[in-house]
Amino acid sequence: MLNPSKNAHSLDPRQGGRELVFSTIRARERVARIDIAQETKISAATVTSITAELIAEGLVEETPRDPSAGELKRGRPRVDLKVRGASHIVAGLKFSNNKVTVAILDFVGNPIGEYERRMPTSQFDIEGLASFTKDVLETATQSCGLQISDLSGVGVGLAGIIDAPKGFVHWSPQLKNRNVDLRSLLTKTLDLPVFIDNDANLVAMAEQWFGYGRNISDFIVVTIEHGVGMGIVIDGKIYRGTRGCGAEFGHTKVQLDGALCRCGQRGCLEAYLADYALLREANIANTLDEEETSEEKLVALFREAKAGDETAKLIFQQAGSMFAMGLANIVNIFDPALIILSGERMQFEYLYEDEVIEQMRQLVVQVDMPAPEVRIHTWGDLMWARGAAAYAMEGVTKIALKRISGHAT
Amino acid sequence: MLNPSKNAHSLDPRQGGRELVFSTIRARERVARIDIAQETKISAATVTSITAELIAEGLVEETPRDPSAGELKRGRPRVDLKVRGASHIVAGLKFSNNKVTVAILDFVGNPIGEYERRMPTSQFDIEGLASFTKDVLETATQSCGLQISDLSGVGVGLAGIIDAPKGFVHWSPQLKNRNVDLRSLLTKTLDLPVFIDNDANLVAMAEQWFGYGRNISDFIVVTIEHGVGMGIVIDGKIYRGTRGCGAEFGHTKVQLDGALCRCGQRGCLEAYLADYALLREANIANTLDEEETSEEKLVALFREAKAGDETAKLIFQQAGSMFAMGLANIVNIFDPALIILSGERMQFEYLYEDEVIEQMRQLVVQVDMPAPEVRIHTWGDLMWARGAAAYAMEGVTKIALKRISGHAT
Repeated sequence: MLNPSKNAHSLDPRQGGRELVFSTIRARERVARIDIAQETKISAATVTSITAELIAEGLVEETPRDPSAGELKRGRPRVDLKVRGASHIVAGLKFSNNKVTVAILDFVGNPIGEYERRMPTSQFDIEGLASFTKDVLETATQSCGLQISDLSGVGVGLAGIIDAPKGFVHWSPQLKNRNVDLRSLLTKTLDLPVFIDNDANLVAMAEQWFGYGRNISDFIVVTIEHGVGMGIVIDGKIYRGTRGCGAEFGHTKVQLDGALCRCGQRGCLEAYLADYALLREANIANTLDEEETSEEKLVALFREAKAGDETAKLIFQQAGSMFAMGLANIVNIFDPALIILSGERMQFEYLYEDEVIEQMRQLVVQVDMPAPEVRIHTWGDLMWARGAAAYAMEGVTKIALKRISGHAT
Repeated sequence: MLNPSKNAHSLDPRQGGRELVFSTIRARERVARIDIAQETKISAATVTSITAELIAEGLVEETPRDPSAGELKRGRPRVDLKVRGASHIVAGLKFSNNKVTVAILDFVGNPIGEYERRMPTSQFDIEGLASFTKDVLETATQSCGLQISDLSGVGVGLAGIIDAPKGFVHWSPQLKNRNVDLRSLLTKTLDLPVFIDNDANLVAMAEQWFGYGRNISDFIVVTIEHGVGMGIVIDGKIYRGTRGCGAEFGHTKVQLDGALCRCGQRGCLEAYLADYALLREANIANTLDEEETSEEKLVALFREAKAGDETAKLIFQQAGSMFAMGLANIVNIFDPALIILSGERMQFEYLYEDEVIEQMRQLVVQVDMPAPEVRIHTWGDLMWARGAAAYAMEGVTKIALKRISGHAT
């Protein structure tokens, strides 16, 4: 706060107050005005006037105080405030390698509907992605008696390098085009506010809203699916980097001039850890049935390793060691309170078995304090979609609060 | 701001206003009240009352408006505000491998004095460090007509793993003891507020206050001296990690089971880049004169490489490649706007010659945008000491503003 190169944040103080009051209500789920004033240090009079605005805008509603939460005082019955679930409905979409998953939530975050569809292709051109998204969203909303126009916003998670504040996709394995202003296109196609982010960031957001990351201000999520992703939360916010290219983990290098990665570079962590990396090794060891799909081959390889096949075991051990090294580097750089390992591949416990975590602990700088906690979260794609919906909620909230500011001035 | 796991920041709003107003005055150097109000969005009346408090506390003074800065309006002559240099004097100490450097600054940041002394030992016990620090500081203050008691605070930079907010040293190569509450000891010895941080963080702070980092909210400083250090600035603040162990770069791993590092682990970046790593290789290649000091040997090795000796060249090239790989990983993770390379070893341009920077660019994830800017800053230890003094200024400012808050309530 005190250093000279930091620009003063230039929010209208009343707007900052609204954000703070609303986020406090959201975080506390139900809370009395007086407790908001105490927690935010905003005067009781201002809290009363801000909450009146939030109620008028329909974002917040009064609710009788839960008597079990504390004894009622004499006089006027105390009321709590809570986010009004019906105020906005949002949808979140997660595109994975072969399917799209949709979560529809009310504004409290309660699920209204969910939907899944296999993808017709693993790589779209942008017009194809836009019309597919619209089609999927139509079916998804209809399946719970809604229309797209009932939504206040849509969050979309894609793999790749995405400048989230701009909704700009530098590159995604799911898109044929590079350098696409995907938000503008989807906003136009859906006629709704659209919020786009890297899918691993949205898992981090799901952890923050619904998972292990609640009330933890600094944590890291590492996802292993078809590729390797990372989401970084610093000071309660997703860290995205200057060009929106931050938090790239899968393509950090663990070996100079190492194994070839599908990105074209050498020695990326992903080139030792991803499905294709494991299968590349298994192919050479010639242990696979060529008739099987990649998924089946991987399961078979894992079964062989578990059954004691030395070659198969070594393939997984090498992947585990490289993973431990990559994780240790992250711990050395960020020193987070918590690391959450997530994603489909967490079904293969070689990635997080005790030896791997222990190896990681051995590779970080040693101080006489416990190493960061590591938790495994084997969520499915639905949770990623809920993270995308949470991102949409954040964006819709900003729009709604800005609208109040517009009335007020 | 809007996510539910973020704790509301619980500052007294008036105290937050004081910090904002003072930091604006510091950043702008000289600024009129009306411009502070505009920039901070704090009401003109509150700015007037806060600046009156700051003037009464002696932190800020009025100064006639520089007429060249803009035409004078009719009526009352406009005055600017500026930080009052005489309000506080602070000192910063940087302990390097073989000497200690002291910078004494006024509260604007102008140098009052500087001092340097060779160290009697490269590793102290903590009592030894405390009495040595006191002795050095006595001489340093006397050399500019002051006494230790004239200082309002002292900043100290050490290599190692330091929990700066607690002033706790987990480990430092300059200390025999581990897990030391060094701040308490030095505060008692010097009878002054003391602020301790990892030395690379203080270089980052020096860059932020006095160097290339001014007005840049996200940048990274990498220092190569006896060891390899890093300071990370995110959103205008030094990033330190949960346990104060963050921003560790020298001991990130660039090679699984690689070269032995002096930390006892294998494959650390430092084990390929530090003086001892280069000399280890040179020893094997047998190119060195055993009579020379390490420093002389290194200079000789560099001279040989420049003269075309293939073995010497390869030693530096290997170090450069590992450095490029480590830097690329940092870029992939942080995506900073700027990387500043600093420290004594920057005299050896093999670490930042075009090939190394180009290699780094090849190893980061490719998007169709320019890679982060890389700047070289060959500052001496005095600048590190000025960073330590800036850290002390930050701490002294907090104390002074808290005192105002105490009067006010």
